[in-house]
Amino acid sequence: MDKLLFGVAYYDEYMPYDRLDKDVQMMKSAGINVVRIAESTWSTEEPQDGVYDFSHIDRVLNAMHAAGIQVIVGTPTYAIPTWLVKAHPDVLAITPNGQNRYGARQNMDISNTNFRFYAERIIRKLIDHVKNHPAVIGYQVDNETKPYNTSGPEVQQLFVQYMQAKYPSLDSLNKAFGFDYWSNRINNWNDFPSTVGTINASLAGEFAKFQRMLVTNYLAWQTAIVNEYKQPGQFITHNFDFEWRGFSYGIQPDVDHFAAAKALDIAGVDIYHPTQDHLTGTEISFGGDMARSMKNGKNYLVIETEAQGFPQWVPYPGQLRLQAFSHIASGANMLEYWHWHSIHNSAETYWKGLLSQDFEPNPTYEEAKTIGKDFARLSNHLVNLKKTNKVAILFSNEALTGFNAFGFGWGAPGNYNDVLRPMYDALYRMNIGCDFVDPTSTTIENYQLLIVPALYAAPDSLLQRLNRFVKNGGHIVYSFKSGFSNENVKVRSTRQPGIINEACGIYFSEFTLPENAGLKDDPFKVGKPNNSIQRWMELITPTTAKVLAWYDHPVWGKYAAITENHYGKGLATYMGCMPGDVLLQKILQDAVTKAGLWGTDQQWAFPIITKYGVNENGKTVHYYFNYAATPATIIYPYANGTALLANEPVRKNQQLTLAPWGVTIIEEK
Amino acid sequence: MDKLLFGVAYYDEYMPYDRLDKDVQMMKSAGINVVRIAESTWSTEEPQDGVYDFSHIDRVLNAMHAAGIQVIVGTPTYAIPTWLVKAHPDVLAITPNGQNRYGARQNMDISNTNFRFYAERIIRKLIDHVKNHPAVIGYQVDNETKPYNTSGPEVQQLFVQYMQAKYPSLDSLNKAFGFDYWSNRINNWNDFPSTVGTINASLAGEFAKFQRMLVTNYLAWQTAIVNEYKQPGQFITHNFDFEWRGFSYGIQPDVDHFAAAKALDIAGVDIYHPTQDHLTGTEISFGGDMARSMKNGKNYLVIETEAQGFPQWVPYPGQLRLQAFSHIASGANMLEYWHWHSIHNSAETYWKGLLSQDFEPNPTYEEAKTIGKDFARLSNHLVNLKKTNKVAILFSNEALTGFNAFGFGWGAPGNYNDVLRPMYDALYRMNIGCDFVDPTSTTIENYQLLIVPALYAAPDSLLQRLNRFVKNGGHIVYSFKSGFSNENVKVRSTRQPGIINEACGIYFSEFTLPENAGLKDDPFKVGKPNNSIQRWMELITPTTAKVLAWYDHPVWGKYAAITENHYGKGLATYMGCMPGDVLLQKILQDAVTKAGLWGTDQQWAFPIITKYGVNENGKTVHYYFNYAATPATIIYPYANGTALLANEPVRKNQQLTLAPWGVTIIEEK
Amino acid sequence: MDKLLFGVAYYDEYMPYDRLDKDVQMMKSAGINVVRIAESTWSTEEPQDGVYDFSHIDRVLNAMHAAGIQVIVGTPTYAIPTWLVKAHPDVLAITPNGQNRYGARQNMDISNTNFRFYAERIIRKLIDHVKNHPAVIGYQVDNETKPYNTSGPEVQQLFVQYMQAKYPSLDSLNKAFGFDYWSNRINNWNDFPSTVGTINASLAGEFAKFQRMLVTNYLAWQTAIVNEYKQPGQFITHNFDFEWRGFSYGIQPDVDHFAAAKALDIAGVDIYHPTQDHLTGTEISFGGDMARSMKNGKNYLVIETEAQGFPQWVPYPGQLRLQAFSHIASGANMLEYWHWHSIHNSAETYWKGLLSQDFEPNPTYEEAKTIGKDFARLSNHLVNLKKTNKVAILFSNEALTGFNAFGFGWGAPGNYNDVLRPMYDALYRMNIGCDFVDPTSTTIENYQLLIVPALYAAPDSLLQRLNRFVKNGGHIVYSFKSGFSNENVKVRSTRQPGIINEACGIYFSEFTLPENAGLKDDPFKVGKPNNSIQRWMELITPTTAKVLAWYDHPVWGKYAAITENHYGKGLATYMGCMPGDVLLQKILQDAVTKAGLWGTDQQWAFPIITKYGVNENGKTVHYYFNYAATPATIIYPYANGTALLANEPVRKNQQLTLAPWGVTIIEEK
Repeated sequence: MDKLLFGVAYYDEYMPYDRLDKDVQMMKSAGINVVRIAESTWSTEEPQDGVYDFSHIDRVLNAMHAAGIQVIVGTPTYAIPTWLVKAHPDVLAITPNGQNRYGARQNMDISNTNFRFYAERIIRKLIDHVKNHPAVIGYQVDNETKPYNTSGPEVQQLFVQYMQAKYPSLDSLNKAFGFDYWSNRINNWNDFPSTVGTINASLAGEFAKFQRMLVTNYLAWQTAIVNEYKQPGQFITHNFDFEWRGFSYGIQPDVDHFAAAKALDIAGVDIYHPTQDHLTGTEISFGGDMARSMKNGKNYLVIETEAQGFPQWVPYPGQLRLQAFSHIASGANMLEYWHWHSIHNSAETYWKGLLSQDFEPNPTYEEAKTIGKDFARLSNHLVNLKKTNKVAILFSNEALTGFNAFGFGWGAPGNYNDVLRPMYDALYRMNIGCDFVDPTSTTIENYQLLIVPALYAAPDSLLQRLNRFVKNGGHIVYSFKSGFSNENVKVRSTRQPGIINEACGIYFSEFTLPENAGLKDDPFKVGKPNNSIQRWMELITPTTAKVLAWYDHPVWGKYAAITENHYGKGLATYMGCMPGDVLLQKILQDAVTKAGLWGTDQQWAFPIITKYGVNENGKTVHYYFNYAATPATIIYPYANGTALLANEPVRKNQQLTLAPWGVTIIEEK
Repeated sequence: MDKLLFGVAYYDEYMPYDRLDKDVQMMKSAGINVVRIAESTWSTEEPQDGVYDFSHIDRVLNAMHAAGIQVIVGTPTYAIPTWLVKAHPDVLAITPNGQNRYGARQNMDISNTNFRFYAERIIRKLIDHVKNHPAVIGYQVDNETKPYNTSGPEVQQLFVQYMQAKYPSLDSLNKAFGFDYWSNRINNWNDFPSTVGTINASLAGEFAKFQRMLVTNYLAWQTAIVNEYKQPGQFITHNFDFEWRGFSYGIQPDVDHFAAAKALDIAGVDIYHPTQDHLTGTEISFGGDMARSMKNGKNYLVIETEAQGFPQWVPYPGQLRLQAFSHIASGANMLEYWHWHSIHNSAETYWKGLLSQDFEPNPTYEEAKTIGKDFARLSNHLVNLKKTNKVAILFSNEALTGFNAFGFGWGAPGNYNDVLRPMYDALYRMNIGCDFVDPTSTTIENYQLLIVPALYAAPDSLLQRLNRFVKNGGHIVYSFKSGFSNENVKVRSTRQPGIINEACGIYFSEFTLPENAGLKDDPFKVGKPNNSIQRWMELITPTTAKVLAWYDHPVWGKYAAITENHYGKGLATYMGCMPGDVLLQKILQDAVTKAGLWGTDQQWAFPIITKYGVNENGKTVHYYFNYAATPATIIYPYANGTALLANEPVRKNQQLTLAPWGVTIIEEK
Repeated sequence: MDKLLFGVAYYDEYMPYDRLDKDVQMMKSAGINVVRIAESTWSTEEPQDGVYDFSHIDRVLNAMHAAGIQVIVGTPTYAIPTWLVKAHPDVLAITPNGQNRYGARQNMDISNTNFRFYAERIIRKLIDHVKNHPAVIGYQVDNETKPYNTSGPEVQQLFVQYMQAKYPSLDSLNKAFGFDYWSNRINNWNDFPSTVGTINASLAGEFAKFQRMLVTNYLAWQTAIVNEYKQPGQFITHNFDFEWRGFSYGIQPDVDHFAAAKALDIAGVDIYHPTQDHLTGTEISFGGDMARSMKNGKNYLVIETEAQGFPQWVPYPGQLRLQAFSHIASGANMLEYWHWHSIHNSAETYWKGLLSQDFEPNPTYEEAKTIGKDFARLSNHLVNLKKTNKVAILFSNEALTGFNAFGFGWGAPGNYNDVLRPMYDALYRMNIGCDFVDPTSTTIENYQLLIVPALYAAPDSLLQRLNRFVKNGGHIVYSFKSGFSNENVKVRSTRQPGIINEACGIYFSEFTLPENAGLKDDPFKVGKPNNSIQRWMELITPTTAKVLAWYDHPVWGKYAAITENHYGKGLATYMGCMPGDVLLQKILQDAVTKAGLWGTDQQWAFPIITKYGVNENGKTVHYYFNYAATPATIIYPYANGTALLANEPVRKNQQLTLAPWGVTIIEEK
């Protein structure tokens, strides 16, 4: 990327009247230099089977080009036209709740042959049509793709073929998956039952892997098609999203982000998050760290984020700017709002864009103008920020699926992301930068400290690799339930925590749920209200480990809650329970300190957030964010530099004031 | 109607043993002079296809007539017989949840050809059979009719025909409904997808209109059939009901009451409401005002209301009387309990009648006897009460459906009636009598003050008419979200509030949800706990309007919450948020006062409720109700008259004591 | 039974590696002398249609026999193999939610012809194969059988045949079930609609009876097959379970326990219950009293109970012993944990056995070893304990189904067991031993005091029998809603409470729900917070009854809440409302005292629980349990004896100390 991109999704198709020239003019005023188009308008582009109409595309490409605005063209396949469903009803996915109905996007079976046929045809037509237009800088294949729980008979057949290839012997499959239980044995491939009713977490976990593979293959297939047309200088991306809790919360359960991103040139994500009094920047940082990690540190695109968004998200003055620079501080090279104008009909009327339905300038748009101006002015200082972290979080879709099959107990709320996110959030609040790795990552050994939440399902080889990581001098913090089962969600029949007990120097055979339990003698000095355990409670006996905390409980007080163990040249910390946020942060602070990573930036903590990286000129850039409604002051501790936004010199140890929801960016000399 | 009717629903068919003579005797003792029969007993009247048995009907008609009790005969079509379903399973409606099962009432597709055939046949047979019986004073067509969400393939086909007629051009339909969004364009009528899965609120809203039209047409069809048999002096009514929240709460979403009532001679409703410590009379007043408004001020029938009802509704001593006269004070000419005896089998065993299953006299029955006696004695003073109001509430089914598609935000509780009812309730508590009007009403211009809750979807013409109403001297109080979208639930692309901003002298482009927000400086003097905003928050800028209240919020304090604007000769008040009940009442008090309508009766407020009207003799009758468990005193402020219940003279300025749950009725001399 | 049995469920089929010898050795160390096998492993025993493999069975039988451990062999029919479903999809039950899917156990239609064919074949093959093995002491037919709500077209056909046989006249059926209501009349058997959609509680109740009959017949059918092979000395049992609320809570709604147990030689049950701070012993006592009552006082088998169980159930030290002897004190002759080892795959991974998945000795296993040792040492003192009670609780599946059709009002939580269990629990807390009887019991008249919760649906004959019971000197405590409807859930048209009003000397015609209501003047001296009514409120007028408590309420204070009436030689107490637990216990204490049953053991109350019985040597054995985390002391009041666990003499009036969660067993000399 040669500059910071600032943009919006733009839908000429949806306009109540011809707005194009006026919109382009208003975009230019706001410093917008890129738009994304076409990703959900198949029925406009191909109004009938084999009849094409790219007039909206052409209009927009020409108008944008004339204004110097670049365009990313999306393939339109994630929302299907009425005529396709009428002609081929089987394109609608069959899920455990029956066959999907027409209406919403993302209702199709992405493995369906008919869907693939028509999808390929429109992709080829569209991309061939636009590929040489000078406005086009890249392509987005599909959008927020997931398997949508497709699990009908055709998918089942594909799955059985996949299983036959992976497990040539039914006997070993029965053994590995424990099918003797409840008479589930499969003694003939023809008997293979639908996975829909299964109560076997091994089978459900394997089917989830298969479904994630469908996504990986589907995106690779689209990418391969587009690659046939792609011109030099153009890129291909995709818009990945996260576990949704009314906002972008955690690891996406349905997609292997690292695997799926392999086919792409550049990673893209959407990041939606609370604002107003609930704006913390955590999701911006989390989603950004994940997106940057997808392509091993390469800068990424924020393809969607909110301008006004939901009614409760209308930003306070300053927040839109704060958010924008937070994205850039995590390594984003593009920030694109969904969307330019607010929709006048249909489901997302109250998911508002930069403009309201009245197309009038409004406070959010006015603030965006200041961002566009600063992006343009500072682009060569801010673009392509390189970030190098010594801490990584090891996540695993395999572990996630296995963990979520059982969670914290029958009917108890909470899933894998309720372990991972609190650990991430504690790092964020302490200004500890981190990357994400997954079991396929070759870079795990590059880090000094690994955070490993709930690695519930993992092959022996991964756990042995983690043991070696510690032996060779690495630090690891494990949560409870790590190592518990193998890659088939079969609980290990050896001592727990499986295999990693070697590095951790502990074992446990029983576990329970905490009730009025805490840590004995408040070992992390958090005070009584914070010194409590929220979830899970492994009854740990140390072998070689040092006990950092015993349980505070009349019966379970003889068991360890948190331990650390020197193993080889490294240190392994094990947390047998889920503490509250304050306690968790202290535990991780202790681990970070022992890993020798407690540095200058740790003098601040949330709501003061700092990020840094090295820009294209080789200079270090420090971002200081104030995620609060009150002003804050800090003493700038690094070499003399320039406050880029104010364009003023800053000296080491100079006191800086951060406005409410304010940001300062300092480039060292 | 030549007298007040006091009655019950009576089901000879359900009796565990022959009770008819005993029941008639007990009815006579209670002053009952009308019964409703037959509305859900098709399977008894036509036990097999084409086999008829009207013996229960005949028995009851004869016995009632002999006792001087009149009879309303219901067509039995809202509960279908087993043989019909066996022969024609397609009569069971297909809804988004699949096809209905046999068992409950109201499970049929009212547009189904087979259902219509058999329904017509039994209606003709029954009505022809009874039409000349001297006991019969009228007919009820069907019961609590609604579309029951019928939406199977046959209904879909009718809907597509309706759409083809209404929108000859698919292009303009696609534009009007925003079908380009998410690839929903329909480029060929053959591709029209089922509405069941739609995410398009314009389409869903249109389908809801179509479904309401099915009800209008169905009731008109039944009425036309019955009209062929109806004898002079007989009437046709229907039993309309309301949004159900465990009791009759608000506007019925599934029926256009005004349209459906056109075919009828007289309006009928059922009104169920909490009692005991939760009896307020609000639902009696609300349902009555709506029923009276259905036929433009004509007196109406309360076809069903509770005697004992649910276990928690067994009335306290006095409450049954209080309720009875409350109905009459709103303009009812009939009060009919559902039902005479409590059912011994099936679903409504615990929805108890005047008698329990033991048929013994009980306290509720004993109190009913006093009502019957007073009704008979005072009939010519109370019947045909004429009411004239200067305030009306403008409701709209179109707006309701549009509003409810989005409500107060994704997942937030509350719907259209949660705006309308609090506004109605505030008027009720202040003893401001009101009528209802809808967009088809020709009488809107007759009122001095219009209350307009959440007029979310409305054609330009209606909003322009409302602007003219103000210009010509009218007063309007609008709530938030009024004018927001057009009749197709397409958000206006002009300034908000759409079109009415002209009369209101304001605009807004952004809105949010309130969090710890109130009104600055407590402008309505309600005290801190009451001075808060419950829901929604439009960020209003006045143009010509005067600001009645600014938001009290650290960020949004620069925006107006409530405004008023002189426009032409009138005044338009706009409320950009939903206040709590106390605050809302003060806001409406202010509007009522400015409209010059704050009068003598406003010296009292709930729990003292007063109603008035003019009787057949041209005399004004004042009702005073005490909706409280403690006695109250009032000074009677009008001309000398007669306390009808006590049959005592009352002088102007005389002090009157109202018993707990008591009522006094004074006819001016 | 010639000795106490101590065992586990054992699944050689599920083992991750060959553990048999090691497991047998660890079982022997724990004193385990019985295992249950094979009840859910059909797919292992018959891997393909007609192909049998009993190698796991044989291995286990041989190994157990060699170690002197006895075996109960289960028929494997409650979990069906994949090949059977592939060949005959109709074996999967059709329920109101559609056809079941493959995966879980208990998904079949137990009345299905194909299922019966294959079930019979595997039963015959298996039982024939094992019947002569010397390890085999008995058989369990199926497991936790219920109708699983099977209600597809085939079942419907069987039901209509059953109805035709039971109600030869449709007219009388229509009358009895009130089918005239809502046009539900059936005028031709061919019109009989599916019960699935019914809103008629009489029909739903009859269908529930029919479904329970399917279970009775199915278990009798399996038993008859096994009986063809059963050898002398072998027994047949079944594993019944209870209403499940995350643990074994109350009467099983779906099975007539007394009817279904008739075919068996010995009753078996599973009992799961909370532990840790929530261990009370109530479910152990409740489930045991029910199991013992199934075969009229005969000792029973606890076929399943938890060792570790759910994570939150890991027992505190001492609790596993406390639980074990509590079962024996209720008359159990066997205690079998589900299960030996914790499952490594699938749904019940977190329903842990005696061993964790690591197969290592753990604290729970270590405590089990002490139980096994004491069972063996004390077997001839403890086995075959005979218990004789003077109090019985009359339960009724018919009443349960009828009550639950309406419960405490539309949408109100709570069902029949929420009346029965609090009444049982109060007796338990007061150490009043009791049996269960149902309407078919011939022993009702043997008791001095009957507790009758919510006998909502009952034939006249039963109520008349209960009147005679009182007349002849018996005491009864009725709850509200008793006698309300007949066996067809038709509310009586005579005075309430129906028929029993004669013995109770009261009547009521109206009822309501309590709101801020209690009992006037705290007649049971429980203090204000406890003196409140939780649910239901019949407005009772005494005729001959003495009023024990009037309602405390401004309006309903003139009605009686609790009454007692001398009738003949006996006393009938009637409770018109549901009090809280403390108040209820006082009410029952009063009744117990008036029945002359307040004895020595009533000096203690929960958490001190005492049970007693007579052992095979004719000696009385007293159990004292301390269900608390703190120690307790008691004065032993009976004849000199021996503390069996400590093997020490105990003298009358000696002070005994009970450890936290401790138990003492004293056999009188």
